Amino acid sequence: MATSHPRRRGLADKSVRPTRILTGIGDDCAVLRLLPGRGQGQDTLVTTDFTLEGIHFRRDWHPAESVGHRCLTRGLSDIAAMGGEPIAAFLSLALPRDLPQSWVGRFVRSLISLAEQFGVTLAGGDTAESPNGILADIIVVGTVPKGKSVLRSGARPGDRIYISGELGGSAAAVWQMRKKPKRKLNPRDYRRHFFPEPRIELGRILREKGLASAMIDTSDGLSTDLAHICEESGVGAEIEAELIPRASVGKPAREVDLKFALHGGEDYELLFTAAPKKRVPSRIAGIPITYIGHITREKKIFLMNRNQIGYELEPRGWEHFRR
Amino acid sequence: MATSHPRRRGLADKSVRPTRILTGIGDDCAVLRLLPGRGQGQDTLVTTDFTLEGIHFRRDWHPAESVGHRCLTRGLSDIAAMGGEPIAAFLSLALPRDLPQSWVGRFVRSLISLAEQFGVTLAGGDTAESPNGILADIIVVGTVPKGKSVLRSGARPGDRIYISGELGGSAAAVWQMRKKPKRKLNPRDYRRHFFPEPRIELGRILREKGLASAMIDTSDGLSTDLAHICEESGVGAEIEAELIPRASVGKPAREVDLKFALHGGEDYELLFTAAPKKRVPSRIAGIPITYIGHITREKKIFLMNRNQIGYELEPRGWEHFRR
Repeated sequence: MATSHPRRRGLADKSVRPTRILTGIGDDCAVLRLLPGRGQGQDTLVTTDFTLEGIHFRRDWHPAESVGHRCLTRGLSDIAAMGGEPIAAFLSLALPRDLPQSWVGRFVRSLISLAEQFGVTLAGGDTAESPNGILADIIVVGTVPKGKSVLRSGARPGDRIYISGELGGSAAAVWQMRKKPKRKLNPRDYRRHFFPEPRIELGRILREKGLASAMIDTSDGLSTDLAHICEESGVGAEIEAELIPRASVGKPAREVDLKFALHGGEDYELLFTAAPKKRVPSRIAGIPITYIGHITREKKIFLMNRNQIGYELEPRGWEHFRR
Repeated sequence: MATSHPRRRGLADKSVRPTRILTGIGDDCAVLRLLPGRGQGQDTLVTTDFTLEGIHFRRDWHPAESVGHRCLTRGLSDIAAMGGEPIAAFLSLALPRDLPQSWVGRFVRSLISLAEQFGVTLAGGDTAESPNGILADIIVVGTVPKGKSVLRSGARPGDRIYISGELGGSAAAVWQMRKKPKRKLNPRDYRRHFFPEPRIELGRILREKGLASAMIDTSDGLSTDLAHICEESGVGAEIEAELIPRASVGKPAREVDLKFALHGGEDYELLFTAAPKKRVPSRIAGIPITYIGHITREKKIFLMNRNQIGYELEPRGWEHFRR
């Protein structure tokens, strides 16, 4: 599996990968040999995510390449959020009878191309006829050194809260498409929506250096995903509106509104906490890391404005593309 | 997870199971600790299967309990066909907005009840809104001693061909429902269709005793699944029509037609081959084992009648419940 993405070279160095795919497509199961690794062994990570037409994408809005890329990104990003290494992907795909074969080809090629960038093997799955619309379920299996998974439940009062990259870029694209459904967006101007980058290397470094006490990917949006960390850790949080890094999208590029950065999902950035004594660099693996607040004992989440007045922040679920 | 199925006691003995589920639902990934086992280590098995309304089941034909049971059986049967032990299941479930909550409860309880019988933990998954119909994807992760998976590719000329249990019972139920769509079948009279039993223990014993050279589960039907073995092994086969064990279903129970036993899918029996020198018992783990023919060098599959005249057998795909 050659890759032509020099940016990511080294990430997928097979010689040190903790696995071999013994049997892929063409038997009842895929057989993976997950080697014990250098230390005391490995834990196995498993994640599954649906990509459904009309819910997660619309065929008139999203090119097949974008759908394939986003489908796998959902799974890879979950592995990143544990600090893990992705190993193998499994794709269950149900297609309507009238779907052009070319659509499937573009979808699968894009998905496999992203898999190759991260040294992930598409090792199996299922195919079926769909009664309505394109249905995909992506399963990603990964590994992490034994007991070293970065969970959502590790945040402690006083921990600082950090976010990678920028937020709101994906939701802003959805908002644009909803506002003018006939006008096609150019994916190049909205890459964070159409071709998001899973933060695998960043997640791995945070885990290796023991920096993150808790971590999640921002698939549902900052307000919802921070609430997940707080709930699983039994804590609260205060974040500062001014500090939240907002994406710039469109042409000409404009910074998105705060509401997109707060509530918009599918940016696939990493939201993590770190003990106050840890020195967290302002950039890791080329990705900017921004301090946005801290964890509190009181089990509520407050958004502080520039005058340090706090408003309780309700998690607002990320809305998909309902027709 | 207590179980009240004395028949299967011992199968799910947790004290010797090669895994622990460290983190299940409630984080970005499930974390499995697959222990190395007694010998030289374990391989990991992964299988995924869709269960889609209108394709794999119909809500007016199948009670929710049957849909949940059949959904997990699809995955467990794939693990059985490798000679593996199932460990954890993941359920991706997309539901239409108007689906009664009681349907979901019955579906999930039935699925979990079957999981418990086999000591399998439901360790995660995904939920989404479905634009149309109920969509489920089941992922089952299992283990098998390193290098000991029973593959489809191991059949050699001269090997004998065996089938567990009886065939055609599931397809005969579908045929009944198609013929009289208004009349509901009593699941008790067609258990093999509504509540099939995955042959986990049988598969494990065949692998442990080194009896099976190749194995597959009859999810697509004998003619198709035997073709899979022949194709992967680069061989052909001769089977005898008279020897194929046909299910008896309905009330009063009647033996199904040969066509159902030959081409009907979703019986979830194990079809396997064994070297001629192996002594294969006529019953293993309480399941009858029937000799039905042998593997040939010529890459064709022949069905022999009582006069030993052979007809070439074309694999006829199993048809689902298209509306």
